[in-house]
Amino acid sequence: MSFDRLIEKIIEKQNPSVAGLDPKLSYIPSFIREEAYRRCGKTPEGAAEAILAYNKGLIDALSPIVPAVKPQCAYYEAYGWQGMRALQETIAYAREKGLFVITDGKRNDIGTTMEAYSAAHLGRAEVEEEAFPAFDGDALTVNGYLGSDGIRPLLKDCEAYGKGIFVLVKTSNPSSGELQNLQFEGGETLYATMGRLCEQWGETLPGRYGYSGVGAVVGATYPEQLLELRHSLSRTFFLVPGYGAQGGGARDVLPGFDAKGLGAVINASRSILCAWQKTGAKEEDYALAAAQEARRMRDELVAGLGGRIGA
Amino acid sequence: MSFDRLIEKIIEKQNPSVAGLDPKLSYIPSFIREEAYRRCGKTPEGAAEAILAYNKGLIDALSPIVPAVKPQCAYYEAYGWQGMRALQETIAYAREKGLFVITDGKRNDIGTTMEAYSAAHLGRAEVEEEAFPAFDGDALTVNGYLGSDGIRPLLKDCEAYGKGIFVLVKTSNPSSGELQNLQFEGGETLYATMGRLCEQWGETLPGRYGYSGVGAVVGATYPEQLLELRHSLSRTFFLVPGYGAQGGGARDVLPGFDAKGLGAVINASRSILCAWQKTGAKEEDYALAAAQEARRMRDELVAGLGGRIGA
Repeated sequence: MSFDRLIEKIIEKQNPSVAGLDPKLSYIPSFIREEAYRRCGKTPEGAAEAILAYNKGLIDALSPIVPAVKPQCAYYEAYGWQGMRALQETIAYAREKGLFVITDGKRNDIGTTMEAYSAAHLGRAEVEEEAFPAFDGDALTVNGYLGSDGIRPLLKDCEAYGKGIFVLVKTSNPSSGELQNLQFEGGETLYATMGRLCEQWGETLPGRYGYSGVGAVVGATYPEQLLELRHSLSRTFFLVPGYGAQGGGARDVLPGFDAKGLGAVINASRSILCAWQKTGAKEEDYALAAAQEARRMRDELVAGLGGRIGA
Repeated sequence: MSFDRLIEKIIEKQNPSVAGLDPKLSYIPSFIREEAYRRCGKTPEGAAEAILAYNKGLIDALSPIVPAVKPQCAYYEAYGWQGMRALQETIAYAREKGLFVITDGKRNDIGTTMEAYSAAHLGRAEVEEEAFPAFDGDALTVNGYLGSDGIRPLLKDCEAYGKGIFVLVKTSNPSSGELQNLQFEGGETLYATMGRLCEQWGETLPGRYGYSGVGAVVGATYPEQLLELRHSLSRTFFLVPGYGAQGGGARDVLPGFDAKGLGAVINASRSILCAWQKTGAKEEDYALAAAQEARRMRDELVAGLGGRIGA
């Protein structure tokens, strides 16, 4: 169930990485932006058009290489409902192209409200006797601060629709330790406690590869905690952000994997999205440059893992 | 700054409450749903149309009574971009009618990404040389699990646009204690630590009434913690959910207020939204029934506070 589909794609493509689709306008080649503005004006609608066109080019180029993409909701939400439409169309396009889509929304709320978020991102929302998917990714990132009530409605939809969630455990940002590293009485840190809950929440969603449908977000910028958590959370698949532009390297993420080279998927956003700017490629070659960086990252990870993944 | 505008509206209307706009379709009178489906079909677009029409009726009836409304993002997001358009139009309509709008999104992420969420909900998103507001509420609820990095971008927009944030401290749901009540070494609970951070984050956003632009969400269902936090967090304004359908009563929320009857705004959603169903009112009178319940709640709170608010 759930992350089995992601793991199969990772094995098939021999690539344990995910490309983050965090489309800041400044990352988008001017020919795409100008074309969108000609049609829709320099407006939120124009921005959303540019984002969608940029994403489609990236998805076309990346889909033979990466198993998954991770659109970050915030960059779409910033352009209002037009941006959210671009998010919805991006997710649909990526899934059409065979990619596993992790919607990075970090949603959280009390139980009844989480039913609505779950309908929005994993399941279906009812309109009288019909039910419709909305954003419909394969997995959603969530925040577990509210405890089990806020997670359970998601588990139902994960089971019904074969989807997964990634719960924030140890995030990649500089201040993540401010709360997450504090130790409770007895010595367990907040992040370790959250991780332990992930193992429990995942019990009802077992997978063929030993990993449940409840994953954890653990940043590449904290390799020691990544190692510690890989040891303590044997059933929990990791989404590892922070590789590349945030400072984590291939060596930093290797502790997130198990002996078969499974157990983790490594996200890179800026390093792939902005590869054309960094390498001085022609604007028209932005997607080629992204694919080249995605291949470089894949090769680096696979070499670090010592060859074959999943064997 | 920031919550001063909310506090002024509370004093002006002598009502420290906020009406939650959590529009489940089952709460919406059938004449509104049927009319929307006739125009847009039984589709996400039809659902979004029904939600917007229902909300406008509520806002018209409630705006003379309550100082604020709190749309809950999840119920809009469930209907995809069409739902998000209804959210955007609901917020704009409520602000036109003079209401303070608290967007209940519980957003959270690392710093660079929070800039985008902040642009989406409090500030503006740039499209080349222009900048546009998107959802544009007066305040946003956020989750502080990632620490200061994830809060700072919001503070900038709060200052620039006179807005505020409410950070989840002690939530109203049954499992909120699972993590939030755990004690760190030294004895401070997670919720108290989060509360202390709210006081710090608020230092740069002082207000005329003694409350900063960084508020806290503290559930009515935990009156003891509400009292404890009111004492320890003297500069932090409280958003108190859980009154009414979630089980908190007027007596439970009184500990959230200061000696002047300020310092907190009490949310009720279902009890107001579904008043027409509960009282057996005619469908056409749903907004009247909501207004009646909002007045009843106001009178109950004001009586509990012993009369005048803000004096």
